[in-house]
Amino acid sequence: MTGTMHTYLEEKTAYIENHLVPALEKEGVPSNLYESMKYSLMAGGKRLRPMLVLAVLEALEKPLERGVPFACALEMIHTYSLVHDDLPAMDDDDLRRGKPTNHKVFGEATAILAGDALLTRAFSLIAESYQTHPDVKPITTVNLIAELGKRAGATGMVGGQMADIEGEGQQLSLQELEFIHRHKTGDLLIAALRGGGYLAEANEEQMEALTQYGICIGLAFQIQDDILNVEGNAEQLGKAVGSDEERQKATYPSLLGLAESKDRLQALIEEAKSVLTKVGLENSALIPLADYVRTRNK
Amino acid sequence: MTGTMHTYLEEKTAYIENHLVPALEKEGVPSNLYESMKYSLMAGGKRLRPMLVLAVLEALEKPLERGVPFACALEMIHTYSLVHDDLPAMDDDDLRRGKPTNHKVFGEATAILAGDALLTRAFSLIAESYQTHPDVKPITTVNLIAELGKRAGATGMVGGQMADIEGEGQQLSLQELEFIHRHKTGDLLIAALRGGGYLAEANEEQMEALTQYGICIGLAFQIQDDILNVEGNAEQLGKAVGSDEERQKATYPSLLGLAESKDRLQALIEEAKSVLTKVGLENSALIPLADYVRTRNK
Repeated sequence: MTGTMHTYLEEKTAYIENHLVPALEKEGVPSNLYESMKYSLMAGGKRLRPMLVLAVLEALEKPLERGVPFACALEMIHTYSLVHDDLPAMDDDDLRRGKPTNHKVFGEATAILAGDALLTRAFSLIAESYQTHPDVKPITTVNLIAELGKRAGATGMVGGQMADIEGEGQQLSLQELEFIHRHKTGDLLIAALRGGGYLAEANEEQMEALTQYGICIGLAFQIQDDILNVEGNAEQLGKAVGSDEERQKATYPSLLGLAESKDRLQALIEEAKSVLTKVGLENSALIPLADYVRTRNK
Repeated sequence: MTGTMHTYLEEKTAYIENHLVPALEKEGVPSNLYESMKYSLMAGGKRLRPMLVLAVLEALEKPLERGVPFACALEMIHTYSLVHDDLPAMDDDDLRRGKPTNHKVFGEATAILAGDALLTRAFSLIAESYQTHPDVKPITTVNLIAELGKRAGATGMVGGQMADIEGEGQQLSLQELEFIHRHKTGDLLIAALRGGGYLAEANEEQMEALTQYGICIGLAFQIQDDILNVEGNAEQLGKAVGSDEERQKATYPSLLGLAESKDRLQALIEEAKSVLTKVGLENSALIPLADYVRTRNK
């Protein structure tokens, strides 16, 4: 990663994180519930989804501010999904990003409710923030919510998580593995890109390119995740490595081998960059962000 | 309950239930997840929240059809809250409406995900259904979602559930008990009424009356729930009676005694009817629906 890109990521991460806590409601919320929501929302992470929203606005020369509520909503949905995934009845994880998981700190009941409240807040945040926004039409807000709901729910992220749980300990085909990742990870990235497109008033061609880019980096992201689980550094990752093999989880390396997984990862990143170049977005931060998905070590 | 009201409730229940399953997405959803969502959505219940939406449209002489997506969304949110509340980490209930709870049939992981997916679907259903609706403006849809999110989330239903859990085994004041019920039960009823008001283009005075009516019947609903837990018939209720006392749960009868609880219930119902009468809605089904909240035996 170049120094410029490093600075870009740091700046954008700080920008996003400054907006996250104020986007939660505090007044009238039982304090334990508020603290539990804040704990997981501020427990670090790459902030990739909000970053993609901002990068689309930047690429289409629109003010970043316009993307903030939608970007925060995406991070809330991503966060709730991790809180629920870590529960004993699901993946039963004690650590997330090097810190105790939500239910380890606040208890299971609070973790379930904090996840529910983060998911609900995502939608009300979008609706409230754009209710009287001078540059975002009500129909754009409706489109954003329809897009986000579709990508986050039973046909999207939650469906992917369900397929993932059902596939554990099973011999999966590459197609089944891709269904899981396309939905579990890819769909929320696609929502970030398409939502950014709605907010930036992208034309149809640009919207299609953003969608394709999202599909590519979504799969690439997951392949890199699987590779890091084999080759990564537990300290940098903030979680154990080798856990996929231990759980006999189907992964790209287990299905394709490590070398072919890396080739596939590289090809997906090239494709992602190429679709953007074709619609004239080759100078946007989305290009180095695609590389970042491949080269990240956490 | 009069025969006419009985017929009204039966007709409206059938009308709502006919729309619930088609409002779920099926294609592209893992079948276990779909079945789990459908199981709890169709497990019976009074359908009170959707019924209130339809009654508001009827009272303001607007087509019922307009309220269907919002009504179904409310029922999905109500259902998800029951699925999550019944989990072992929460109330740990095996039976709901006389049937095994969701996690007893599908397992805990699926129950958590089905709840998440129902909550998400509620918002995408509203956004999608009204995206191109001839009589519902995009800003009305945005207002509906803001209202629903506020009433269902950390400042509303989820906050009430959190306070309820934290209050278990504690000596609560009447004020604390009312905070719990106002939010846990009342807020979603208020959302039904105000959402119906938005869809029916209620004026400010009518909206205020609908809100006050909602506050009254929300508390009344809970007082009757507490009374039924003392005096009710387990078979009719589909759940155990006496469980509140067993769990040493603070209830209206435990704080006020049974007689005063009944007086308070009656006064709330009278107030609910009176606020509607003042804005000329005395001939609407909302009047017998208020009585139904008091006289119901399940």
